[in-house]
Amino acid sequence: MDELCLRYRNWGRWGEDDQRGTLNFITPGVLVHAASMIRSGRVVSCGLPFDDEGPQRGGFGGRTNPVHSMLQDGGDIALGAQDHLAVLRYTDDAVSMPLQCGTQWDALAHIFYRGQMWNGHGLEHVTSTGATLNSIDRIADGVVGRGILLDIPRHRGVRWLEAGQGIGAEELADCAAAQGVEVRSGDIVLVRTGQIAQVRATGTWGEYDSGPAPGLGVSAAHWFASHEIAALATDTWGAEVLPNDTPGVFQPLHLILLVNAGMTIGEIFDLEGLATACEEEGRYDFFFSAPPLPITGAVGSPINPLAIF
Amino acid sequence: MDELCLRYRNWGRWGEDDQRGTLNFITPGVLVHAASMIRSGRVVSCGLPFDDEGPQRGGFGGRTNPVHSMLQDGGDIALGAQDHLAVLRYTDDAVSMPLQCGTQWDALAHIFYRGQMWNGHGLEHVTSTGATLNSIDRIADGVVGRGILLDIPRHRGVRWLEAGQGIGAEELADCAAAQGVEVRSGDIVLVRTGQIAQVRATGTWGEYDSGPAPGLGVSAAHWFASHEIAALATDTWGAEVLPNDTPGVFQPLHLILLVNAGMTIGEIFDLEGLATACEEEGRYDFFFSAPPLPITGAVGSPINPLAIF
Amino acid sequence: MDELCLRYRNWGRWGEDDQRGTLNFITPGVLVHAASMIRSGRVVSCGLPFDDEGPQRGGFGGRTNPVHSMLQDGGDIALGAQDHLAVLRYTDDAVSMPLQCGTQWDALAHIFYRGQMWNGHGLEHVTSTGATLNSIDRIADGVVGRGILLDIPRHRGVRWLEAGQGIGAEELADCAAAQGVEVRSGDIVLVRTGQIAQVRATGTWGEYDSGPAPGLGVSAAHWFASHEIAALATDTWGAEVLPNDTPGVFQPLHLILLVNAGMTIGEIFDLEGLATACEEEGRYDFFFSAPPLPITGAVGSPINPLAIF
Amino acid sequence: MDELCLRYRNWGRWGEDDQRGTLNFITPGVLVHAASMIRSGRVVSCGLPFDDEGPQRGGFGGRTNPVHSMLQDGGDIALGAQDHLAVLRYTDDAVSMPLQCGTQWDALAHIFYRGQMWNGHGLEHVTSTGATLNSIDRIADGVVGRGILLDIPRHRGVRWLEAGQGIGAEELADCAAAQGVEVRSGDIVLVRTGQIAQVRATGTWGEYDSGPAPGLGVSAAHWFASHEIAALATDTWGAEVLPNDTPGVFQPLHLILLVNAGMTIGEIFDLEGLATACEEEGRYDFFFSAPPLPITGAVGSPINPLAIF
Repeated sequence: MDELCLRYRNWGRWGEDDQRGTLNFITPGVLVHAASMIRSGRVVSCGLPFDDEGPQRGGFGGRTNPVHSMLQDGGDIALGAQDHLAVLRYTDDAVSMPLQCGTQWDALAHIFYRGQMWNGHGLEHVTSTGATLNSIDRIADGVVGRGILLDIPRHRGVRWLEAGQGIGAEELADCAAAQGVEVRSGDIVLVRTGQIAQVRATGTWGEYDSGPAPGLGVSAAHWFASHEIAALATDTWGAEVLPNDTPGVFQPLHLILLVNAGMTIGEIFDLEGLATACEEEGRYDFFFSAPPLPITGAVGSPINPLAIF
Repeated sequence: MDELCLRYRNWGRWGEDDQRGTLNFITPGVLVHAASMIRSGRVVSCGLPFDDEGPQRGGFGGRTNPVHSMLQDGGDIALGAQDHLAVLRYTDDAVSMPLQCGTQWDALAHIFYRGQMWNGHGLEHVTSTGATLNSIDRIADGVVGRGILLDIPRHRGVRWLEAGQGIGAEELADCAAAQGVEVRSGDIVLVRTGQIAQVRATGTWGEYDSGPAPGLGVSAAHWFASHEIAALATDTWGAEVLPNDTPGVFQPLHLILLVNAGMTIGEIFDLEGLATACEEEGRYDFFFSAPPLPITGAVGSPINPLAIF
Repeated sequence: MDELCLRYRNWGRWGEDDQRGTLNFITPGVLVHAASMIRSGRVVSCGLPFDDEGPQRGGFGGRTNPVHSMLQDGGDIALGAQDHLAVLRYTDDAVSMPLQCGTQWDALAHIFYRGQMWNGHGLEHVTSTGATLNSIDRIADGVVGRGILLDIPRHRGVRWLEAGQGIGAEELADCAAAQGVEVRSGDIVLVRTGQIAQVRATGTWGEYDSGPAPGLGVSAAHWFASHEIAALATDTWGAEVLPNDTPGVFQPLHLILLVNAGMTIGEIFDLEGLATACEEEGRYDFFFSAPPLPITGAVGSPINPLAIF
Repeated sequence: MDELCLRYRNWGRWGEDDQRGTLNFITPGVLVHAASMIRSGRVVSCGLPFDDEGPQRGGFGGRTNPVHSMLQDGGDIALGAQDHLAVLRYTDDAVSMPLQCGTQWDALAHIFYRGQMWNGHGLEHVTSTGATLNSIDRIADGVVGRGILLDIPRHRGVRWLEAGQGIGAEELADCAAAQGVEVRSGDIVLVRTGQIAQVRATGTWGEYDSGPAPGLGVSAAHWFASHEIAALATDTWGAEVLPNDTPGVFQPLHLILLVNAGMTIGEIFDLEGLATACEEEGRYDFFFSAPPLPITGAVGSPINPLAIF
């Protein structure tokens, strides 16, 4: 693991003060090229609804589904509680939620390896008042660029991958080739396992929030690093195959790619509509926009990722 | 007011079941044209940080600044609280916040006029469990398209507009013309008053969260409606000039444009960086992406709006 | 139902402005007598812990278990985050919780019958900003007095009552007599069904949070009213037998006793330790202190009820 | 400081596993004697309302006033949102609050001195998931006993003490003597500075939440320890005089009394009504009941302390 981490380590590559990691691969030129992906004007959201029907079932300590509450609503208007206002009546609301309870980006401050996070910073930078470095607000002008979908179940000819089934570097390459998509530096790569389809087919989240899952195997690290991928995301809670294929190391890609390579990782994406759209559009690349909320010091952010064809 | 509301009323225009209003102006063709705005690859966020230094000062009932809390942090790692994990260590967090405490979109369920919201629906659709119609999740595949900035202080040659100074239809047209920007159907229009610049210059939010403000006057309704604008946003808490220029009616544009025309309204945008970018880029149009969080039944959403040149 | 409500209605009995209802039965003399219950100095808490292992399982809309979060903790100290303080180091925390998610008092504003709550007040007094009348803070100087436990399972010779088993006026009287306890005006009566014992024996909350339960039948109304009971509480989520023994009326005792008689009702009490203590002490009366948190405008309050022998 | 801490250290006095500290002074006999204080049946709450008008003004990092929200209210009933229920209609609510934002007890896990809290336990026992030792739920069967009020402003003949004015051991003794109150082992001592009266007279909380304050000086340690006081509380945010009279040590009594002697400390009590009651009743001792909410792992608890004459 140490060797893999060192092999793909990008610390210092964009300066000692860098807090954006591989998002730096999204150069202005990359973004201009990404714009050329918008050709049919079709928009697909890859975000799950944020509500109490979400994936959290208590499996991941401290993560609950969002709690939405109304500060003012139609009932207040009906009862005259806003009669001090001239003509206009309004509603207002609030939410309380773990930042990674649904569709989300991990900030580079989300993972530590041997006491260090991205660019070598220590534990003292993430205390109860938040992260002073590598927090999600440091990538407030992202994550936007060219997106590509690697639809693994379609490639395998199955409805979904089962928990425990891993996806390695070779299959990623094969899938891209079969889909006819050229992978470029600065791409944002979405890998579909179909686990959301399985949840819908079975009618239950089961252990989706923290349990066994299909996902990326450790060999995928090479593929992501060598292609200079800017960010990756999947439709599972933790992106990686679980149980991991690395005995003695939990979630090795988070250590290799997020901590060492500086790659932002997205999770709990809903890629079902996108898979359908790609098939219908006949292409697996698109413009992709998923700006995180710039919550100061946060180590993750709920998002609503949009793919635009 | 009744006459103005009726004049610009779009109820039924996109079907009885429509919950997207003027976002329907953003057709696939509009979106493809919007992509042509991306020419230099520069990205500017128009979102304020979400934290306890935000604009809320208790002036608007029930709205507080966000409360961010850590579920796991570096201290837990330091104390060995994650030693049951194999090698990987992580941080995690949560937020509790009014949905309109910072940079945000109003949902079409946010405002009522004579007991009705967009498309004629009644109060019973927004109760303590949220909105069953016109909620923010109904526009989850938006808000994205061509954005234009109308920089009013620059047009007037001042640093910022003072509270109470209104912006009418004529000035919007003049400003657009002076900036050399052609307004098109489906545009998302950002109007800068400079109030955020004033806050920064004076070092205090003052009554920014609910008090007197520069902003749009009621005559602006005609400009927005006749140009088939898809959405509008400003850098103030309520978009409109306060005190309003309509004695006896509070926030008339919300009634005319949001309730009757079906126009999504954004508020508390930070347009300072965007104004600088527009000046430097020599143009006031850009690709604009500001997807709301699809919080089920919510009447607003915090956002991180991106302008891309 | 209308007849029962009218029969036991106390509206106006303690004045038109009264917001304390039957707590008025706890006169200074009652309180002085209650003090004479303290003879052995044994204290028993009847409160369940407030945490994420609590009874809420999503059955009751909007009620979740408490979410506890740390604002400062040992990890912050370890990492030096408090080194600006001179010698002292501290921890700090917060909670977010539905007020009736665990051991709690219903405020008199918690229940409405035909559009009215205690003392005849209407719906307009409980809006999204809270209750302006009959809220829990109006009984901030209570609930304290003489408590008595009616241990129904022990009386029946069973470990616990099963869901659907009701307790009527006669059984309450019989149980009190068998226990040798004299019921007095102003008493606070705790009725044990043993459902908490069942939860512990089975190792699961099951439908405890909102489902079928043992509890008081509608005939109990007469017993509580005629004895001038000040407040009642049980060890179930809703105090009453479920399904209710009144077809067509949900939770009739809440309508009769809380709305009409003005009786504060407590729920989700843990009466297991108290039952043991009563048996060991050889008496079923004690000093009882369960002050609600004076949350302004709240319609309920979490509590930690203490019985003192 | 080290010497004072060691002098009053009670670690091990009630066993290595003790988590109740000086509350152990409240023996059954003490409690029975305390009951004899109830002679007139008058009840006085010493709790401030918990609402957004509370003392927090942002001065103490992370502490805000409580946020109360409604889950169901009269408006929902008016709009028919509960028409699926048979006859009964209800309201429901929630709160989100720092546990020490208002009237509260510090848990023994609230303060650390040289990496140790009460009974010598280390930092690793208070992480982001709460305190595993000395948390507030460990004193769920307290805090109840005989209370005494030492009304310092009345003793001095002033309306209130000014910020920075300290109260030493000698004055505590003098005040008790002047009031004719005999201090006994196991007493709960409330010390009034009158700062709440000052807040009300001036109409502003000012820096009440974290700033300069009247309060106990370091010499008070001897008085509290030698009298075997069970718990102490004041009407200020931090109990101690601020600035502290110990250069180089912040809040020394917290270190001496809470960490080393094991004394639970209460803060932000409203002692105004109690002062009036004591004067009218002609005595400064009473029965005192202030049970904390047993929030698992919490380091403090909001309370509603009752004094009963």
